[in-house]
Amino acid sequence: MVSYEFKKRSDMRKTGLLALLALLLLGLFLVRCDHTEQAAPAGAKYVFLFIGDGMGLSQVVAAEAFLTDLSPGGGYVSLPFRDFPVNGLSNTYAANRFITGSAAAGTALATGHKTSVGRISMDTSGSIPLQTLAEKAMEKGMRTAIISNVSIDHATPAAFYAHQPSRNMYFEIGLDLARSGIDFFGGGGFKEPDGSHNGREVHIPALAQENGYTYINDVEAFLALEAPAGKVLFVHPGLTAGASMFYAIDQPEGYFSLAGITRKAIELLEGDEGFFIMVEGGKIDWLCHDNDAGATVWEVLDFSAAIDEAIRFYERYPEETLIVVTADHETGGLGLGSNVMKYDTEYSLLAHQKVSGEAFNRILAGWLPDNHINEKGFKKLLMLTEEYFGLGGEEAPIVLSSVETGRLRQAFMGLEVSREGEEPPYDRLTLTILEILSHRAGLAWTTFSHTGTAVPVYALGVNSMLFGGQTENTDIPRLIWQTIE
Amino acid sequence: MVSYEFKKRSDMRKTGLLALLALLLLGLFLVRCDHTEQAAPAGAKYVFLFIGDGMGLSQVVAAEAFLTDLSPGGGYVSLPFRDFPVNGLSNTYAANRFITGSAAAGTALATGHKTSVGRISMDTSGSIPLQTLAEKAMEKGMRTAIISNVSIDHATPAAFYAHQPSRNMYFEIGLDLARSGIDFFGGGGFKEPDGSHNGREVHIPALAQENGYTYINDVEAFLALEAPAGKVLFVHPGLTAGASMFYAIDQPEGYFSLAGITRKAIELLEGDEGFFIMVEGGKIDWLCHDNDAGATVWEVLDFSAAIDEAIRFYERYPEETLIVVTADHETGGLGLGSNVMKYDTEYSLLAHQKVSGEAFNRILAGWLPDNHINEKGFKKLLMLTEEYFGLGGEEAPIVLSSVETGRLRQAFMGLEVSREGEEPPYDRLTLTILEILSHRAGLAWTTFSHTGTAVPVYALGVNSMLFGGQTENTDIPRLIWQTIE
Repeated sequence: MVSYEFKKRSDMRKTGLLALLALLLLGLFLVRCDHTEQAAPAGAKYVFLFIGDGMGLSQVVAAEAFLTDLSPGGGYVSLPFRDFPVNGLSNTYAANRFITGSAAAGTALATGHKTSVGRISMDTSGSIPLQTLAEKAMEKGMRTAIISNVSIDHATPAAFYAHQPSRNMYFEIGLDLARSGIDFFGGGGFKEPDGSHNGREVHIPALAQENGYTYINDVEAFLALEAPAGKVLFVHPGLTAGASMFYAIDQPEGYFSLAGITRKAIELLEGDEGFFIMVEGGKIDWLCHDNDAGATVWEVLDFSAAIDEAIRFYERYPEETLIVVTADHETGGLGLGSNVMKYDTEYSLLAHQKVSGEAFNRILAGWLPDNHINEKGFKKLLMLTEEYFGLGGEEAPIVLSSVETGRLRQAFMGLEVSREGEEPPYDRLTLTILEILSHRAGLAWTTFSHTGTAVPVYALGVNSMLFGGQTENTDIPRLIWQTIE
Repeated sequence: MVSYEFKKRSDMRKTGLLALLALLLLGLFLVRCDHTEQAAPAGAKYVFLFIGDGMGLSQVVAAEAFLTDLSPGGGYVSLPFRDFPVNGLSNTYAANRFITGSAAAGTALATGHKTSVGRISMDTSGSIPLQTLAEKAMEKGMRTAIISNVSIDHATPAAFYAHQPSRNMYFEIGLDLARSGIDFFGGGGFKEPDGSHNGREVHIPALAQENGYTYINDVEAFLALEAPAGKVLFVHPGLTAGASMFYAIDQPEGYFSLAGITRKAIELLEGDEGFFIMVEGGKIDWLCHDNDAGATVWEVLDFSAAIDEAIRFYERYPEETLIVVTADHETGGLGLGSNVMKYDTEYSLLAHQKVSGEAFNRILAGWLPDNHINEKGFKKLLMLTEEYFGLGGEEAPIVLSSVETGRLRQAFMGLEVSREGEEPPYDRLTLTILEILSHRAGLAWTTFSHTGTAVPVYALGVNSMLFGGQTENTDIPRLIWQTIE
């Protein structure tokens, strides 16, 4: 049993409360179910693990509530994976911190071991590598795929094929990728594709090619692949600066999606050997860090569409397929109620948002030089907020209250401060816009960081019942392995 | 299928997003599991339904994280009910509003029907009564108990025995109680015990006595009861103004608890007829409305101790007992992370809180007349905040930052405004104190109202597997009834 750092117990004077505590600790021994000790019939040949980075319960319900509000009529709209027959709730804390990070949580989900924040499938000391589910699957002769819409060397995907003491060692993670033997990588690219290794300059995609990977950076060529395709490294064309795919809300028409990559991976890997496919919806977390509710709901829907591909596969092989959907942690402390709306909600208002806050920062950067930070400029800003968020004056879809207008004006005038010299604080203005919109829709946030709440686990297929009840995140890969063995 | 009011769909320009939406709606038909159609072997003779009012997932995890921080060493501390083998997630929306209220949610959990906000086991029109689980159990000859630590005529308990168009018709709800035939009522008292009915003045406890109830308002007399005790109406002595029991954190030493009432109910009802016992932890919701994190964690632990009584009973009759624990809705949008602490948490700081915010308001009301609203008065206030919340100057357990001190000072100086004439806004000062403490511990809130997120369902015992996966709150009583039949 791994423990995280415990704080010194505070002085407590109330004996009644102490007695209650004692009673509760006693109660702890009454019911215990150790998930990893349950007997599981073997048999999962095709295994999917979907990880929504930052996708807590509220992110899922918010996406559903948004869909429901947008639906022409009648009835609550559940995402397909929410209807899986088994739900569990999983604790996410790391070995050294209650609120985990994506590396430690990814390691837990990949290896079954709690580790320190920042480690990539290494123990808490950062010196002992921990075998991952994907590596075990390869050892058993199964085919493997690692898919993510953030850079493929990012913490969550990396935890399935790399072993490094720090998630920031992107180049070293890339080296691990090139020699991993994983059959299929797909999605984002590399944050540090170039570096020096063993005295020579290395370009990660080229190294992967040396090691037998077909490197593809074109959607048509990717779609033209046919099984048996050998080892594939597909980097999506048209990435952002961080080598990740675009947010769903910012994708140009016809952008090849996470669902498309998942579908192709299934097609290429299907076969007698069976497969293990991990798909990360990596950007839900990023948007929740920005408290960007409008973009978050689309991102969850985009991830859900990738899960639908696995569900379609399951329908063909229900006796041999297991699908597990979970999150590494919740991000943002998203609540489905705001003090502006109280008991009311109008989630469909989020549909007025046309770009992510991050993309809006870039729009602001282009717009600002042609405008003045004064009352006239502010009027023009309201045309911009109306265009991209529906927020504006009396004719706008969402009419700003005087308080909201005042907050926006203050944030806008604040751009002046750093107009000369450093980059204006677009973020502060954009955050104000995002906050006004989300509060009006009936959503609010408690933090710009991760939170420590438990996350749901949804399971369908062979031995899915094992994933019900309370689990540790470290139970998930152990139970999956039990299911494969 | 019941639908709540749908908002008009916003104009959406992005065809890509529309296509995604279409894909998702298509996906919805792929996996469906209707819980109420699953075949269940009969057999639950003893059934417990525990409803934590306002107790969402985060309230439960916050209580566990608090216990963990307070524990002398090693390992995450789960509440016993969190270790139940089955978890589900239940949607809580009402017929006419996404964010439900306790009456509509109580009706859903009691009758299996969605209704409008405010109705007590009546249909949406408020004219057709809906049979409750407790009434069905009585019809079948089972014994029944309704227990709550708020007033026994409050929305949640009322939904199990009363039928009224409005939760505010407390006197009429009391009349329903007196003629309900429920074997055991225990906990809080009556908000409107007196009124006029059929031309005569009625005192509800007296009417209950006329109808065969033994009315008890004394703990010793209550504990002296022995089976067969007939019909019992136990109102806890020492209630608050709202006829409810004290918050766990405010209870004087030796205060008879919700767990004690549950234990006695079990003792009196155990027998061949079987029983249905509903226990509400009604004040978690109240504290979350106040965003009072320190008192909330103790309230959840107090409720958990009542559930432990059922678990002990289950251990004696595991083949005949079913325990279901859920919530009517989440309150407050509690998040397990704050912008003050970012990735850090120190939940044990909550142990410095000695009284609820509500009780602190009363302390302030007594303290204020002897003090001045000036800098000297503020210094004295800091002695008070240190005594009751640990928050103070350099020698205090929790040293206030300059920003926090500034916020407190501002809230304190604000008391002056209404010092002459109306009641000073103690609430605003107390809320500031509660917010500072919870943010320092690593907790924060999004609203003072309820929220629309799904709530967990925990199940143990006969047919507990039925409660896994996604449910509507209306499925819970249907599944319980299936289990009994």
